[in-house]
Amino acid sequence: MKKSIILGLCALAVSAVPALAQFPGSSPARDNAAIIEDFKPSELNQHGQEYPMVNSQGYARFRIQAPQATSVVVSLGLGGQGGTILQKDADGFWTGTTAGPMDEGFHYYHLTIDGGVFNDPGTHNYFGSCRWESGIEIPAHDADFYAEKDVPHGKVQEVRFWSKSTGSLLRAFVYTPPAYDFSKDTRYPVLYLQHGWGENEYAWFNQGRANLIMDNLIAEGKVDPFIIVTTYGMTNDVVFGHMNEFTAEDFEVVLCDELVPYVDANFKTKSDKWNRAMAGLSMGGFETTLVTLRRPEMFGYYGLLSGGTYTPDQIKDKNQVRGIFIGCGSKEGPDAVNKAAADLRAAGFNAQSYVSQGTAHEFLTWRRILREMAPFLFK
Amino acid sequence: MKKSIILGLCALAVSAVPALAQFPGSSPARDNAAIIEDFKPSELNQHGQEYPMVNSQGYARFRIQAPQATSVVVSLGLGGQGGTILQKDADGFWTGTTAGPMDEGFHYYHLTIDGGVFNDPGTHNYFGSCRWESGIEIPAHDADFYAEKDVPHGKVQEVRFWSKSTGSLLRAFVYTPPAYDFSKDTRYPVLYLQHGWGENEYAWFNQGRANLIMDNLIAEGKVDPFIIVTTYGMTNDVVFGHMNEFTAEDFEVVLCDELVPYVDANFKTKSDKWNRAMAGLSMGGFETTLVTLRRPEMFGYYGLLSGGTYTPDQIKDKNQVRGIFIGCGSKEGPDAVNKAAADLRAAGFNAQSYVSQGTAHEFLTWRRILREMAPFLFK
Repeated sequence: MKKSIILGLCALAVSAVPALAQFPGSSPARDNAAIIEDFKPSELNQHGQEYPMVNSQGYARFRIQAPQATSVVVSLGLGGQGGTILQKDADGFWTGTTAGPMDEGFHYYHLTIDGGVFNDPGTHNYFGSCRWESGIEIPAHDADFYAEKDVPHGKVQEVRFWSKSTGSLLRAFVYTPPAYDFSKDTRYPVLYLQHGWGENEYAWFNQGRANLIMDNLIAEGKVDPFIIVTTYGMTNDVVFGHMNEFTAEDFEVVLCDELVPYVDANFKTKSDKWNRAMAGLSMGGFETTLVTLRRPEMFGYYGLLSGGTYTPDQIKDKNQVRGIFIGCGSKEGPDAVNKAAADLRAAGFNAQSYVSQGTAHEFLTWRRILREMAPFLFK
Repeated sequence: MKKSIILGLCALAVSAVPALAQFPGSSPARDNAAIIEDFKPSELNQHGQEYPMVNSQGYARFRIQAPQATSVVVSLGLGGQGGTILQKDADGFWTGTTAGPMDEGFHYYHLTIDGGVFNDPGTHNYFGSCRWESGIEIPAHDADFYAEKDVPHGKVQEVRFWSKSTGSLLRAFVYTPPAYDFSKDTRYPVLYLQHGWGENEYAWFNQGRANLIMDNLIAEGKVDPFIIVTTYGMTNDVVFGHMNEFTAEDFEVVLCDELVPYVDANFKTKSDKWNRAMAGLSMGGFETTLVTLRRPEMFGYYGLLSGGTYTPDQIKDKNQVRGIFIGCGSKEGPDAVNKAAADLRAAGFNAQSYVSQGTAHEFLTWRRILREMAPFLFK
């Protein structure tokens, strides 16, 4: 198991490096001539807010009102061009444009104003880095697969279930496919889909658009409908540098002994292991390996999204798993992912890999992997 | 109708006055001896955040890191003691305590840092004032009715429905009661419940805890289960000072001709008007009067929560409505609400009023009115 943990942690560690440290050279001094002035409000902006804006090249422009501030810096994550130092104009607005184009897709960011960390009041918030962060979306060339369309839409339900092991009312989100309510006797497989470190149960539907991806795949006949469940992976108390101490044992009890029985009792599920999958992104992938290997009787399909790999020797009984899907972005070591899937296939497993082109440890990678993984499950 | 509009607008206008203007005398200079030092993190704080804190008297204490800032002010709404000017300590943290105890319940607030408006990174965000604002909760003496308990819990579902009239995919949240999924052939009444000006479809479940209120009422046998639907009332483009120009006609089409048919087609509803109610808080109450009076065939029960009144002469046919519930907080003109209900009763209507003691134009008022109104509906 060691190998997969280390790979998972490397990916995590990269994503956690503060953006400014990553891109020390980024600054507002640059060749503006190259920037096409077709900026439009980011699609994630709050109602009526003009900024932040994005242009057709993937540059982002920010504008923050803080007349008496002495310093406003935008910190963007991976693929986000790092720190952008804003400049104050005569009206008290701080503006600035990223030093270069950003990767397509979703990026977390925040502002540092006079030494304090705050969110951009122009945009919506997304839970990452253990807090609600600002988010910006660079339109992707293939955004159609998670676009809002006039197709039948499933529902995302918030459910509250009492967790005896933690003594608290926990939250899960449950995606049911469009036909779910009409199909009185039809039962569906379930994918338990975990977020990454610093994120929570909202991530896959807010940042990930998992519901829209499924709606569109189902409308195109590419996927047989299944249910998706997300819950909090209890990863936010894991301290960086001490990740190898994380056993996910508390989470395993919540997931396997409390949430799965709740979902099977409250939704029209197929409740055998061949109709139950577990997958996760980044640290959620690490959780997936830990839980699936300790509880082979629970899940029939495994998925790791930028979250390490399985090796053939980790899985004692080949017949206990019917499919393993491993993916990552092209900017985060795709060779290891492809090799892992090849090794698994050579050992007789049904394994598939996918590499998202031009993306890093971010949500466009995971949206695409979900799109590729969905038709692979429960087959 | 004029009268009810004016009353509704008065309530709105009061709530919209900037907090600092409301309480010009509030400042950090006060008699600290009176403050009991039993501060605890607000229950709305983000994971692991210590501040903001509240004490047993209802004081709130804030702490913001912004070492190079020159000014940090907390602006709290009605019942929130107005502006609190924070003071910087040697470590670069700005701290301050409200000038007095705050009303029990939920309060929106934001920070003004060096002249710019930002949210407190310590707490969760709640959509109010047409933006996601910070929120703080002063524990109420009667908080038990919306507490998280080990009782059967309903679900809150996010649904996306295609709106032909607006050409967009709109969002609604649908609360289904605990027994909903198990009761194959049982159908339920539906309450369409609107937010106020500057809020959106999230408000009733996030700030309002409508789902927990219903779960607890149902568990105690005080309410026959029904469905609650919330959607965006299109109120955020209404300009203050021009509210009398708001006709809610676009919203009426979305609600009555798009959302109601969607809900009746996709949920196990009783779809006749005697099993359909409309209610709203503040400007959502204004919408309720406009829509119910123009569409008497659609709704059998009406509810106004700090959102004006009906007069007997507004309703042409007494037999078209089976119940009218009117409520507000004791700090926002309860006489008009009680008189309106008495007038309606004198004219032969089934009308009831309720006044929330010690609260203003805020969510504890509306949580309590929902608790009182729920058993009144569909009877």
